[in-house]
Amino acid sequence: MPALELPFSSAEYARRLALVRAAMDKAGLDALFVTDPSNMAWITAYDGWSFYVHQGVIVRPDGDPIWWGRGQDANGAVRTVWMADDHVRGYRDNYVQSLVRHPMQDLAAIFRELGLEKARIGLELDNYYFSAKAHITLVAELPDASFEEATGLVNRQRSVKSGEEITFMRRAAKITDKIINGLRERVVAGVPKNEIVAEVLRDGALGADGHWGDYPAIVPLLPSGTDAAAPHLTWDGRPFANGEATFFEVSGCYRRYHAPLSRTIYLGQPDDTFKRAEAALVAGLEAGLDAARAGNRACDIANALAGPLEAAGIKRGERCGYPIGLSYPPDWGERTISLRAEDETVLQPGMTFHFMPGLWMQDWGMEITESILITDSGPAECFCTQPRQLFVKTNEQAIPRPSDIGGPDPVSLDLG
Amino acid sequence: MPALELPFSSAEYARRLALVRAAMDKAGLDALFVTDPSNMAWITAYDGWSFYVHQGVIVRPDGDPIWWGRGQDANGAVRTVWMADDHVRGYRDNYVQSLVRHPMQDLAAIFRELGLEKARIGLELDNYYFSAKAHITLVAELPDASFEEATGLVNRQRSVKSGEEITFMRRAAKITDKIINGLRERVVAGVPKNEIVAEVLRDGALGADGHWGDYPAIVPLLPSGTDAAAPHLTWDGRPFANGEATFFEVSGCYRRYHAPLSRTIYLGQPDDTFKRAEAALVAGLEAGLDAARAGNRACDIANALAGPLEAAGIKRGERCGYPIGLSYPPDWGERTISLRAEDETVLQPGMTFHFMPGLWMQDWGMEITESILITDSGPAECFCTQPRQLFVKTNEQAIPRPSDIGGPDPVSLDLG
Repeated sequence: MPALELPFSSAEYARRLALVRAAMDKAGLDALFVTDPSNMAWITAYDGWSFYVHQGVIVRPDGDPIWWGRGQDANGAVRTVWMADDHVRGYRDNYVQSLVRHPMQDLAAIFRELGLEKARIGLELDNYYFSAKAHITLVAELPDASFEEATGLVNRQRSVKSGEEITFMRRAAKITDKIINGLRERVVAGVPKNEIVAEVLRDGALGADGHWGDYPAIVPLLPSGTDAAAPHLTWDGRPFANGEATFFEVSGCYRRYHAPLSRTIYLGQPDDTFKRAEAALVAGLEAGLDAARAGNRACDIANALAGPLEAAGIKRGERCGYPIGLSYPPDWGERTISLRAEDETVLQPGMTFHFMPGLWMQDWGMEITESILITDSGPAECFCTQPRQLFVKTNEQAIPRPSDIGGPDPVSLDLG
Repeated sequence: MPALELPFSSAEYARRLALVRAAMDKAGLDALFVTDPSNMAWITAYDGWSFYVHQGVIVRPDGDPIWWGRGQDANGAVRTVWMADDHVRGYRDNYVQSLVRHPMQDLAAIFRELGLEKARIGLELDNYYFSAKAHITLVAELPDASFEEATGLVNRQRSVKSGEEITFMRRAAKITDKIINGLRERVVAGVPKNEIVAEVLRDGALGADGHWGDYPAIVPLLPSGTDAAAPHLTWDGRPFANGEATFFEVSGCYRRYHAPLSRTIYLGQPDDTFKRAEAALVAGLEAGLDAARAGNRACDIANALAGPLEAAGIKRGERCGYPIGLSYPPDWGERTISLRAEDETVLQPGMTFHFMPGLWMQDWGMEITESILITDSGPAECFCTQPRQLFVKTNEQAIPRPSDIGGPDPVSLDLG
């Protein structure tokens, strides 16, 4: 039985570790404890659905990183990480969800064993899955150590993608395109939403272009009509209806890399408000893509977008994008740069963003977005190939199925 | 456009709030800040994929709970919660992933507005999504308040399910059964894993028995062969092979309620070690189900299981189950009771568990599990209807497809 292949070359992992160590050195850290599962995977290649228990990676200035987690997940770590098995440490199962023990007591013992009990240790205080209690326990267990905030320290090193990473994102984008093509074909009035989601999920796992599909860090989001004012509602069993717009925010995923995209489908004839909003949004996107050049700043994209929108009387209060790449639930963003007026980060070639100017109004919503790559020169490249427009479908209706006859309860539609 | 229907009756939400308030009173709390998305939904009916940003629910001894979160998600809250719109509070978007602001500054202002700046406030220090930084910021912003640990306070109130909740879990179990039936039919040597996952995800969203399917809190887990030593590996594009066992841990989900189940499929003829393990595991499960009676303790289930396993020379180090019900990623457990020797919680009618005695050995693994309901009298009831056995499939092979000819790369199999 072959071991799982590493997704990337050893040179790529060496590049990443060198970047992290340079940032640690700049921050004056003797050690870094990494708990964000995306960061853990980016550094070590660890891959498993185990982030619901306490786990992490210890990085020091020398020596290979140490994976630490629940004993049963150490079996998964030795099958996925590039470090030797003696760099995988598991804690006993009775630390899990215990009222009398905390896994951070086990971690503290490892820090002591490594001679780090008086070290300056960086912690991801505001990344995912490092709880308040984990922090309190670790600080109490290591009274002579000093702890420094290292939120986003690793995430920032991930901003500029390598060629290997961009290849993975292109594969993810092929899957995204396949999903959107399926939606454009399948969404018609009368089809229950969960049936459409079933096909989105299936397309996502089947993959595209000869590459299998992984699970995206966010499930498909597809609110309709007035619900489209709310960007993060998931689905139910109600049918799509004529006279409503639905936006679809989805992403293909290739080995944890994402290329999210949103498109909006209108069933019927959109009114003038909707058409004007579409025109302004597309003009804003095009202005933003043109501003998304190496050497410009994150805020330049946001400001370019705002021009056409505000000319049409549309004022957005939200940021219009975030960096993307490797990710685990609950978010496919990297949580560093934000495309908004106050962010002056300079754009570099190899940076990747979801340029995401969703319009979430009082009683309607529209999303037309792009996953983009900052190139060496010129405007951003879009990963996906979807027409940049509102998709309007008129006079199409699902063929009635036997279960539709007789006015079924919209929520408990018979799927038999 | 109709608002989303509440999943439960108002009497059910009143029951829940009364339980939480009694626990708050016992703990001497003036207020409780609930961040675990499962707890937020259980109390208020809030449903949205927004737990990747800071959010929560404030519960006080009087008055309706207050939903608090990102401004754009307040649109989702007013569409899903049972409280009036003035009990939904959104913070400005530039608090999101900011380097200079933290959403807890906004929350602290609300606590002050409510006159709670000197209150005893309970915090879920070790539930999901309440970060170390959130805690540090909130404590700094409210120097005169006292903060008490309330980890699991709400979760414990969820242990005994109402009739309405059990109905939802039965619907989830029908979906689980449908998924397992599909696996038993579809898994044969030569089929790539991701193609099987595609059908699992599709079946899960289509639902069963006239009820639509929601997304489960954990993706399908299905390691094969020696990888089955690692319980939390996800999938890739390699084909199933003869001579290997694969366990499948999956769950249907009905409106956030789960009924997880694992079964193991062996392709080919299992050896005697495997057959002896199956017999011991099934005997252990049956002993455990018989011990899972109201009035007995959580540890009685674990001890009953251990007898037949240890007689067969199998020593497990892990707990053998956890409570289940309403959940959001990253876990479908409730994170309170553990089925293990040290947990003496008394079992009550209406408690629900995933009785989950996975065998994760050095170089193989097997899972045969049950989602169970503690009844008024007699042994536990199983939610699903799958035969309690190892499924052995011999001499079945996928029909070769054109893309299989010529020895494709096992990872980048052409799915075209």
